[in-house]
Amino acid sequence: MYVTWYTAMSIDGRIAGPGDDLSFLALLEAAGEHEAEFAEFIATIDAIVIGSATQRWLVKEGQALPHRGLPIWLVSHDVALAEAAAAADADTPVTRVEGDIAPILDAIEAAGHERIWICGGGDIAGQALAVDRVDELLLTMAPTVLGSGPTVFDAAALERRLFTLEELRRYGANGVRMRWLRDRSAT
Amino acid sequence: MYVTWYTAMSIDGRIAGPGDDLSFLALLEAAGEHEAEFAEFIATIDAIVIGSATQRWLVKEGQALPHRGLPIWLVSHDVALAEAAAAADADTPVTRVEGDIAPILDAIEAAGHERIWICGGGDIAGQALAVDRVDELLLTMAPTVLGSGPTVFDAAALERRLFTLEELRRYGANGVRMRWLRDRSAT
Repeated sequence: MYVTWYTAMSIDGRIAGPGDDLSFLALLEAAGEHEAEFAEFIATIDAIVIGSATQRWLVKEGQALPHRGLPIWLVSHDVALAEAAAAADADTPVTRVEGDIAPILDAIEAAGHERIWICGGGDIAGQALAVDRVDELLLTMAPTVLGSGPTVFDAAALERRLFTLEELRRYGANGVRMRWLRDRSAT
Repeated sequence: MYVTWYTAMSIDGRIAGPGDDLSFLALLEAAGEHEAEFAEFIATIDAIVIGSATQRWLVKEGQALPHRGLPIWLVSHDVALAEAAAAADADTPVTRVEGDIAPILDAIEAAGHERIWICGGGDIAGQALAVDRVDELLLTMAPTVLGSGPTVFDAAALERRLFTLEELRRYGANGVRMRWLRDRSAT
C-alpha cells in the first residue's frame, strides 16, 4: 500500500492560519492549475484517510466529504461526525476508526486498498510518518506566510526520515510544487 | 534598508527540531555548496539582527557570534548574554536592544546600515514581517521532516503578505533553494 500526504501549505509550512483559516488557498486556485492537477491525482487514489479536525472543517465549509465516490476512513472518536459523513452520500462508504495509525493503515490495506490519500491534518500525517508509513509528499506552497496555525507535520518527535526530491517546479506564477518520495535506503 | 531572513528549514517549515536540535543541517552541508553560497550572501550584508534564543544556541554550540566583523544587534533583555558576545571579538560591535522590532530596525538604519540579515529566530522574523519590514526570504529546505520545533515564522497573527518567487532550484541532490521577494504591490 502506498500512502501520499497531499496538501497545500504556506512558506512557513502551515496548512491553515489561526482559526483554521484557509483563505490563503485562493492564491493557489488563482494559479489555474489546481482543478486539472487534483483530478489527475485523485484518479490514482482508492481510499482517503482524514482526521476529525479536517473533517469538521470541511463540514463547516459546507462540504460534507473530502471527495465523493472513494471510501473514507475517518480517524475520530466522534460517532455523530462519522454518521453525518456516511449519510451525506450513498456512494461514499465511511468507516470510523480510532487509535494508533499503524493498525488503521493495516485495516485499510486488508480491505484491498492500494493507494491512500492522507487528506489531513498534520497530526495524522505526523502519526503516519512516525511509524514510517508515508511514502510520498505532494506539497503545493502558496507565496505567503501564515505565522501561526497547524503545520504540515505535527508530531511529538520523529526519527530522521529522509526524502528524495522527485519533482520541483513553479506552481502558477509564485507558488511551488514539490513531490518528495520517502527514501528508506538512507536512514 | 533591505532586510533578508536567511535560514535553513525542514520540509515542514521548522528551523530546529525539539530541544533546538539543528542536526538536520548536516543534510544541507553535505550538498557541498553551503560555504560558497553563504560567503556570497554575507558579503552583501552590513549588519545582523539576532534574537536571544538563537544567540544562546550559538553559544551552546561553541560559536560566540553569528559572524565576525559585522555589527550585531542582539534583541534581548539578557545583559550578560550581550556582554559575553561583545567580549568575544574586538572587531565585532554588539548592540543590545529590546522592545518592538520597528524602532530597532529604524535604529539600525539610522546607524547607516543598508543590508540586514535576520539571523534568527522565527519569532524575530515574525515580528519583522508583522510590521512589513522583511524584504527578502532566502530559504534552504532540507529533505527531511522535523515534526516539532520552532517554525520559520512564529507570529501571533499576520496580515496577508505576498511574496514573489524570484529563484527556485535544487540545493544539492534533494534540498530546495527558494528566494522570495516581498511584493508590496499586491496586498
